[in-house]
Amino acid sequence: MDFKMGYFRENVEKTEGYVPGFQPSSPSVIKLNTNENPYPPSPGVVAAIAAVQPEQLRRYPDPLGNKFRQAAAELHGVDQENIICVNGGDELLSMAIRAFCDSKRSLAYPVPTYTLYPVLAKLDDCPELEIPYDDEFNLPARLAKTGAALTIVCNPNAPSGTLTPVEELASLADELKGRGVLLIDEAYVDFAPRSCVGLVKNLGNVVILRTLSKGYSLAGLRFGYGIAHKDIIDGLLKVKDSYNADAIAIEAATAAIKDQAYFRANVEKIVAERTRLTSMLRGMGMAVLDSHANFVLAEVRGATARIVYDQLAAQGIYVRYFHGLGERLRISVGTREQNDRLVAALEQILQGCRS
Amino acid sequence: MDFKMGYFRENVEKTEGYVPGFQPSSPSVIKLNTNENPYPPSPGVVAAIAAVQPEQLRRYPDPLGNKFRQAAAELHGVDQENIICVNGGDELLSMAIRAFCDSKRSLAYPVPTYTLYPVLAKLDDCPELEIPYDDEFNLPARLAKTGAALTIVCNPNAPSGTLTPVEELASLADELKGRGVLLIDEAYVDFAPRSCVGLVKNLGNVVILRTLSKGYSLAGLRFGYGIAHKDIIDGLLKVKDSYNADAIAIEAATAAIKDQAYFRANVEKIVAERTRLTSMLRGMGMAVLDSHANFVLAEVRGATARIVYDQLAAQGIYVRYFHGLGERLRISVGTREQNDRLVAALEQILQGCRS
Repeated sequence: MDFKMGYFRENVEKTEGYVPGFQPSSPSVIKLNTNENPYPPSPGVVAAIAAVQPEQLRRYPDPLGNKFRQAAAELHGVDQENIICVNGGDELLSMAIRAFCDSKRSLAYPVPTYTLYPVLAKLDDCPELEIPYDDEFNLPARLAKTGAALTIVCNPNAPSGTLTPVEELASLADELKGRGVLLIDEAYVDFAPRSCVGLVKNLGNVVILRTLSKGYSLAGLRFGYGIAHKDIIDGLLKVKDSYNADAIAIEAATAAIKDQAYFRANVEKIVAERTRLTSMLRGMGMAVLDSHANFVLAEVRGATARIVYDQLAAQGIYVRYFHGLGERLRISVGTREQNDRLVAALEQILQGCRS
Repeated sequence: MDFKMGYFRENVEKTEGYVPGFQPSSPSVIKLNTNENPYPPSPGVVAAIAAVQPEQLRRYPDPLGNKFRQAAAELHGVDQENIICVNGGDELLSMAIRAFCDSKRSLAYPVPTYTLYPVLAKLDDCPELEIPYDDEFNLPARLAKTGAALTIVCNPNAPSGTLTPVEELASLADELKGRGVLLIDEAYVDFAPRSCVGLVKNLGNVVILRTLSKGYSLAGLRFGYGIAHKDIIDGLLKVKDSYNADAIAIEAATAAIKDQAYFRANVEKIVAERTRLTSMLRGMGMAVLDSHANFVLAEVRGATARIVYDQLAAQGIYVRYFHGLGERLRISVGTREQNDRLVAALEQILQGCRS
C-alpha cells in the first residue's frame, strides 16, 4: 500500500475528531445519554413524511427551504430572510466557524460547555479561547474582552443545564458589536423559560441557533436553523452547501414547528419530570444543579462516576460520562418510568459502593 | 441597525457563493436544467421511507450510516471501512477541500468543469489552479505537475459529458502519489461505460465521489458517498459533521442501491434517449459532443445561446446556460416526450432566428 502521512492538512492530522455519544442499536435499552426527547415526534410529522411524493425525491429540493423559513419566521415574529435552514444544529456551528474564523480570527467560549466547539476550531485551524465559568456557571466578564471574531455561548449550557439571563447576553452582544459575532447556541432552550431570539431585532451581530432534535423529538431528521440579521444570514448562505436540507426534512420540520400544541405538551411533561428527577437524585445525596434543559448534571458522592456509569450500562441504562468533569454524570430526562428505573438502579449501585 | 462589514472573513466577504440552477416550483414545466433523472426513484425507496418509524426520528441516527456503507461495499466489492456517507456529493467536495487544502495547499482541476470547485476553494481561502482542457477535453498532462494538495477530475466531466479513460486517471493518481490526493467526481458515472472505483484498491491517494441524485433519481434526498483507502476515509470522518446523514436518508439510500435492476433499466432508457437526442440536435445543425452523462452540451449555430435559452424558458422549457461557455447550452436528457418537445421548440426558435 502506498499510503503516506501528509495528504491531510496538519491540523486535521493532529485532531482527534468529535466522538458522538454512544448510540446503542438495541431498542430495549434506557437511553439517557444523548438528550433525545423520550416522546415520539408529532403525528403531523409522520403524516408529512408519508405524504412526500416521488417527484419531490426526484427533483432537487428548494435550496433555501423557504417553506420552513416562512413557518419559522411566523413562529418567531421575524422575516423569512432572518432564517437559515441547516442539516442539524452542528452544521450551523461548523458554518459559523468557517465563515467568521480562521488562523488569525479566534473563537471564544466559556467552559465547560459543548465539546464540539474546540473540535470544529481545530479543524478550521482557528485559535480557541476557553474562558472558565465560575462554580455557579455565571457568564465570565472576560468573554467580552477576548478579541475573538466569534463568541459562542451555549444557553442553556450543556452539560450544566444552567441559564444565563437574556439581559446579560444582550450586554455581551452590545460590547462585542462592530468587533465580533455572538452565537447563542439555544439547542436546549425549548426547556427554558426564556429565549434570546428577540435580540436579533436590535443587534446585528447575534446569531441564534435552534434545533429540532430536542424539543421536537427529531434527532434522527437532522434539522436546525439559525436566526439573525439579514446581512449575517446572507453571508452564512455563501458558506452553506447548495442543497443542505433535503426535501423530506423540509416537509417534516415544517410540520413539526406548526404543531406547537403537541410540542408544548411534551416540553411540559419533560420539565415536570426534570423537577421530579432532580429532587429524587438530591434525595439520594447527589448534588444536582438546577437545570433549564432536558438533562441534569448530577454529582455522585461516595462512588466514582466512571464506576457508576459502567454499572448502569451493564444494566442497559446509558447516561453520559465526561472526562474532566469530576464525579459528574449527565443524565437526559426520560419518561416517568425510565427515570424511576434509573433512580432505582442508582440507589442499588450506590448502596453497593457504600457497603 | 448596527451591522458593519468585517464580521466575516475577508475571503467570505469577497466571494459570491455558488448559484444553483433555477428550481421552478411549477410541476408542469419541462425541467432539463439541473440533470435530474426524468424517472421516479425505485418503489423500494418509497416503501423504505413509508416504513420509517417515529422511534428512528426521535433518536440520533447511526453517525456512520453503516447500513448504507455495508450495502455500498457489497455493490463495489470493497470493505465497509472504504465508504463514507455524505449529505449529497457536494458535501464530500467541501469536506475534501477542508481536509486537504488551505491557503498554502492548493486545489487543481481541469476547466471548464463543475463551477462549484472554485467557489469552495475561495471559501477555504485555498489557491485554485485551473488547467484548461484542449478542444477535445483530453486530460491536460500539466495536471500532474501542479503541486496541488488536491486534484479534482469530474469524470464524466460536466458540462462537456466527456469521459477520460480509467487508465489515464490511474496514471495521474500514480504520478501524484505521496504528494497529493486525486478526487474523481463520478457524479455522472452511472451513465458511462466504466468507473474508476477499482483504483482505490491499489492507489491510496484516490477518492471516488458518488451520488444518488442522478442515476437513482434522488436529488431531493441529498445522499452521496465517497470510496477510498481506509486511512483517507478515517481522515475525512474527522471533518464530517457527527450526524451528517439522517435516519430517513440512510434507509432510502440503502433501498435505492439494493434495487440495481430498477436502476439499470432507467439508466438504459436515459442512455438510449441521449443517443436519440444527440442525433436530433445534430440533425438541426447543432454541434454536440459525445456525452457519457445524462446531459448533452450543444452548440447553437445561427443564434445566440442566451436568446435561445430565454425563448425556451418563456415556453416553460428550462435548460442550462453558462457564461463563458460560448454559444453552448447544457441540456439534461429527459423522457422521450420531453426531448421531442424540446427539439420541436428549438426548431421553431432557430427558424425564427434565421428568417
